[in-house]
Amino acid sequence: MGELYFDNNATTKVCPAVLDELNRVLEISYGNPSGTYKIAREAESLMSDARLSISKFIGARSLGTVIFTSGATESNNAVINSCVKLFPQKRHIISTAVEHSSVREPLLKLKDAGYTVDLLHVDGKGRIDLDELRAKLTPQTLLASIMFVNNEIGNIYPIEDIRRICNEISTDILLHTDAVQAIGKIDVDVEKLGVDFLSLSGHKFHAPKGIGCLYIKNPTNFIPLLSGGNQEYGLRSGTENVQYIVAIGKAIEEISFEDNFRICTLRNRLEEALKRNFSELVIIGDKKNRVCSTTNILFPSIDGVILATALNEVGISVSSGSACSEKGKKQSHVLAAMGIKGKGIRISLSRFTTGEDVTRFLGLTIPVIGKLRPKG
Amino acid sequence: MGELYFDNNATTKVCPAVLDELNRVLEISYGNPSGTYKIAREAESLMSDARLSISKFIGARSLGTVIFTSGATESNNAVINSCVKLFPQKRHIISTAVEHSSVREPLLKLKDAGYTVDLLHVDGKGRIDLDELRAKLTPQTLLASIMFVNNEIGNIYPIEDIRRICNEISTDILLHTDAVQAIGKIDVDVEKLGVDFLSLSGHKFHAPKGIGCLYIKNPTNFIPLLSGGNQEYGLRSGTENVQYIVAIGKAIEEISFEDNFRICTLRNRLEEALKRNFSELVIIGDKKNRVCSTTNILFPSIDGVILATALNEVGISVSSGSACSEKGKKQSHVLAAMGIKGKGIRISLSRFTTGEDVTRFLGLTIPVIGKLRPKG
Repeated sequence: MGELYFDNNATTKVCPAVLDELNRVLEISYGNPSGTYKIAREAESLMSDARLSISKFIGARSLGTVIFTSGATESNNAVINSCVKLFPQKRHIISTAVEHSSVREPLLKLKDAGYTVDLLHVDGKGRIDLDELRAKLTPQTLLASIMFVNNEIGNIYPIEDIRRICNEISTDILLHTDAVQAIGKIDVDVEKLGVDFLSLSGHKFHAPKGIGCLYIKNPTNFIPLLSGGNQEYGLRSGTENVQYIVAIGKAIEEISFEDNFRICTLRNRLEEALKRNFSELVIIGDKKNRVCSTTNILFPSIDGVILATALNEVGISVSSGSACSEKGKKQSHVLAAMGIKGKGIRISLSRFTTGEDVTRFLGLTIPVIGKLRPKG
Repeated sequence: MGELYFDNNATTKVCPAVLDELNRVLEISYGNPSGTYKIAREAESLMSDARLSISKFIGARSLGTVIFTSGATESNNAVINSCVKLFPQKRHIISTAVEHSSVREPLLKLKDAGYTVDLLHVDGKGRIDLDELRAKLTPQTLLASIMFVNNEIGNIYPIEDIRRICNEISTDILLHTDAVQAIGKIDVDVEKLGVDFLSLSGHKFHAPKGIGCLYIKNPTNFIPLLSGGNQEYGLRSGTENVQYIVAIGKAIEEISFEDNFRICTLRNRLEEALKRNFSELVIIGDKKNRVCSTTNILFPSIDGVILATALNEVGISVSSGSACSEKGKKQSHVLAAMGIKGKGIRISLSRFTTGEDVTRFLGLTIPVIGKLRPKG
């Protein structure tokens, strides 16, 4: 029996269709897309098809450009870097207390450098307060960077409403959303959302690790993070990762929203079975407004790191908190912002998770929790 | 008959051993190396082996750290970014007039921002003058960034001597070399060279496009370009491209310096045959001090872009200048710095270039040149 993989918010398995595509492209195409000869032209054409697939999927119809990056960390860093360099006189940024570290860390550095960075508070369910947003925005606000879906608890944030509120203050406020955990799970449409920038990461939807995208609404107003050979319309220098670009294009084409009903049913079955056995457990997050694939569960009497480790030992891949803070074993900044003292375990499914996987997960997990729980 | 590929300085074909490794890793391993469970540990162990292979190959024995990046553009940009942020009071940088755009462009931006950037001149053979270097260095020099091997003409620059001369002025001057075109062709040993930073790119030695390395001698004194989840010892955030990291490790293990004798013989045969047929041709660069795999040839009466395009049409992949400036069709800044007015064609071989390839190359090329040359 293989490992039971329930950490899809950390990374997903490369799906068969993408694997086939990777093999095909690695073998047939090795041109440098900046060349002028046949295989270079082929590489460029493959990239162009992938860009079109991504653009269509995120609704970038009339405006904007999708560029390829090495991942969402680069995309998120690049947005903040560009905004700061373009408008050095505007020194106020709004974000949330629950962003991914690749938004949070650059913003904290800007704070050290004298910027005013307001991180919106969240309540016990991880929800932001739009009145707080409205109160903190000013016409001098440079950027609002607010994630679409939280990686640890699955909460969905109201980007459309945030755009509307920004516009009440000033239509010049730039809006970025890290949509890494949203893609494939909820509708992502850059024009409906009204965002200026949107970040994606391939390995969260069954493409390999090391490829991401950045949607830029107004590419003439963008200062690149990487400079050199002026690839990607001059917006991101560096020889293009042709194979992974093809892979991320294929991966986005493979997404079917119909899978989400089944994933949701499995997640709910898992939560309900655990709840029946352990009535003290707490499901963290906004149950009414979260993606189908994620649950974060707190057992008040069991440390989440100890539980995750015990589950790892019986062959279940889950994590306590996000992969990016896992090694430090520190308290999750997301749970801390929610006022939660303990550590939960994050269980995240994908379209490859089966009913049989959930049955096996429960069969292994329930005795482990039973043993760790204080006898009473 | 397949395309005749003579543009290995732009990008190389992924070699069979690396392809096998890529397939193996893509299928078996998809853990996020920051996780705590089995497949995550496996991913971390694979990366650690690759890091060791790279470190050994470049002689990083006792000192320094090798980190993985998305390619040499990122590595080069990251070095300049870190130096500038660490020592903001030092505002003098030395480089050459023939660097790759991923060094040149960030330095030109610093010049615009008020830095003194001295680009060392080159002579008609592309050689720098160490006396000019000595004269321009000052104790206030922050960084010398000088490539090890030029991508357009193959010239080797004397990094060891450059380190010695820097040290005569001040041992605090940081030395970076872009060794992208050197790896596998000449000995690259960071301790012998005395560099503080060295950049590599996988796709120049038969790994895929989209992976590079950066050697950092003193990692405690480095400010990352990408911030977030603190991967790569906190020196480069972003989920690691595990598959390509394994690939670049394998690719470096596959390098055999013995191949270079054969490559050199083929390159010389090619040059001599063309010279016999077209006595007016000029071989650009320093014939006494260049790598085995590269030749850059100027036909005084034929524009290099026109010739490269004509050769592309008969199925030969060559370029005029570097891939990164190819689309603009501008004069190469390397040839311009050498005082050369025309445009050459760059012919670059790899260990997969065969004698038969050279024979076919000559058979197709000689008539094309004959037709383009003015009758007289």
